[in-house]
Amino acid sequence: MNFNLLKTDGSARLGKITTQRGIINTPAFMPVGTNATVKSMSPDDMKELNTEILLSNTYHLYLRPGHDIIKEVGGLHKFMNWNGPILTDSGGFQVFSLSQLRKIKDNGVEFRSHIDGSLHFLTAELVMEIQGALGSDIAMIFDECTPYPADHAYALNSLKLTTSWAKQCIDAKNEGQALFGIVQGGMYKDLRKQSADELIPLEFDGYALGGLSVGEPKELMYEMVNHTTPMLPTEKPRYLMGIGDLLDVLEAVAAGIDMFDCVMPTRNARNGALFTSQGRISIKREEFKMDSSPLDPECSCYTCRNFSRSYLRHLFMTREILSMKLNTLHNIHFYLEFFRKMREAIGKGEFNQFRKEQTPILQNNFRSGK
Amino acid sequence: MNFNLLKTDGSARLGKITTQRGIINTPAFMPVGTNATVKSMSPDDMKELNTEILLSNTYHLYLRPGHDIIKEVGGLHKFMNWNGPILTDSGGFQVFSLSQLRKIKDNGVEFRSHIDGSLHFLTAELVMEIQGALGSDIAMIFDECTPYPADHAYALNSLKLTTSWAKQCIDAKNEGQALFGIVQGGMYKDLRKQSADELIPLEFDGYALGGLSVGEPKELMYEMVNHTTPMLPTEKPRYLMGIGDLLDVLEAVAAGIDMFDCVMPTRNARNGALFTSQGRISIKREEFKMDSSPLDPECSCYTCRNFSRSYLRHLFMTREILSMKLNTLHNIHFYLEFFRKMREAIGKGEFNQFRKEQTPILQNNFRSGK
Repeated sequence: MNFNLLKTDGSARLGKITTQRGIINTPAFMPVGTNATVKSMSPDDMKELNTEILLSNTYHLYLRPGHDIIKEVGGLHKFMNWNGPILTDSGGFQVFSLSQLRKIKDNGVEFRSHIDGSLHFLTAELVMEIQGALGSDIAMIFDECTPYPADHAYALNSLKLTTSWAKQCIDAKNEGQALFGIVQGGMYKDLRKQSADELIPLEFDGYALGGLSVGEPKELMYEMVNHTTPMLPTEKPRYLMGIGDLLDVLEAVAAGIDMFDCVMPTRNARNGALFTSQGRISIKREEFKMDSSPLDPECSCYTCRNFSRSYLRHLFMTREILSMKLNTLHNIHFYLEFFRKMREAIGKGEFNQFRKEQTPILQNNFRSGK
Repeated sequence: MNFNLLKTDGSARLGKITTQRGIINTPAFMPVGTNATVKSMSPDDMKELNTEILLSNTYHLYLRPGHDIIKEVGGLHKFMNWNGPILTDSGGFQVFSLSQLRKIKDNGVEFRSHIDGSLHFLTAELVMEIQGALGSDIAMIFDECTPYPADHAYALNSLKLTTSWAKQCIDAKNEGQALFGIVQGGMYKDLRKQSADELIPLEFDGYALGGLSVGEPKELMYEMVNHTTPMLPTEKPRYLMGIGDLLDVLEAVAAGIDMFDCVMPTRNARNGALFTSQGRISIKREEFKMDSSPLDPECSCYTCRNFSRSYLRHLFMTREILSMKLNTLHNIHFYLEFFRKMREAIGKGEFNQFRKEQTPILQNNFRSGK
């Protein structure tokens, strides 16, 4: 993996990650394919949307179908028939957010599966083994996602654990697979600095900010992003994990973040919340009943080219499967286009203007009608 | 609408229906798009499968979103973005199978919606108005689907009602829309003859057999099909409503039936029951866990070209939306291919041989594993 920083505009960065499986233009958005599928989308759909990289979840694939099975049938790319780049998270976040009865120990985390209650023990070594079996292009270190709120002592202890697991992950690094470190430290500036200082000498291929958007106020998150991002090496990609509200994305890109992932476009789509050039709308609104216009007249996606608001409302109200697909396709298209426009703006040195123009539109959150 | 009978092989018929929106080669299978969508499929998916005609349900579209809405936004074809032929049923069957508290009167049926309990009254005239608003290429008359079992007196009364509604439908026929009559008569040969005798002088564009596959033994259904089909005009298409088990299809094609519809391929797909050249299989079987081979090595569909049994099993076990789409696509492909092969066999005068070869395969219903 190779990262080229092509241009900066303030702290915003235009870049290019080159992997064996393809190029990722940054700032990049990674749609989430938790169970080796971006919910409701075929890999061909994702290709047609010009998706450059997907994220898949180690925790979920470890539990179902099991990394051994995916390895046996030729790895994650072959399994899901996606030949572009894939980033796998480490399972750290899910162990803390989804699993039951978890016990954090020095050498790993014991937890019960959220699916069947079965007992598991994840270690840094196992997490690297799983990601190696999956064969993702970019792996993440095993980390403890520090909860919010957490006192200084807890956050310190937590980041030390992450550093120790980070070293174990480096030792178990898989050949041909990039590995990113994850900066923790809770909401404490000194600890964020300490975490960065401990991880940077380990020379990861990229650096992520973890433990954000875990319940803290937005302003606090922004403060942490703005504080931490400049500490990270300029020549490596920077990834803000789990964040995808586009207002947050604008703030983070302005701070120098290069990569994002979030279930927001896909989950919102399934719930009928759709992004448009005029703001977000709920497709179930009564007023769309007889509306023969496209969802977003300015959008060029398959959904907007071929279907009316009336039809999309009907599919949503009748809980049709096609509703989820057409909505998801549109929302991902909107996100990828938004990122393309951000890159264009940075390229032209107009990112601040773009941000100023987009902010009121993104704040325009039409209420769901009756 | 125009029907050409191209060739017969015994009583089996090879034909061609020409409509303004396209040609339908017969024997034809019509995938079911109840709510103006074939569940989980986009219209592009259906086109790629070379689908020649879809069926959509008047009862469902009348209740949701309402035919007035579909008319307002340009008709059913535009609404669902499908420009090929569409046949709409009359709602008769659904009123009897889905709705609550129905009261059959001389001039129509009062019933409560299965969705919200609202009260409705369907008449022959209204059913024609709805189908006119939808703008389907082929409409069906309003009929009473005689239940099973029904005594001779009930079945006689029921067929008389259907005949009277048939005449009202003829009077309310929509311009540019073909209209098919529906032969009823329960399981009584004399009544099937009487129904056919009453409907044929009305000169419908095609004739359907209704009130079959409603709980009667298979042998009785076959008896009715073999008894009734030869009474129908040779120069008009013949449609066996709601039947789609391929063993039944073979029997009915041998009797001279030209058109079929059934939710079997689509519903089975969503339940993980998949048709293959070796028989039907359940994708959830344990033995497919690590099976990297395609679902059906002899199949050329998108699903079989791109995914393994292992992946399809995983998607099914994790209840992923893509599971329903990939399975549905495969099953519809299988059905349309089966019908293409039937037509080929009839064309070559080898239908009996085809039937003999296919019967044991279709009977090979692999049990669902643990």
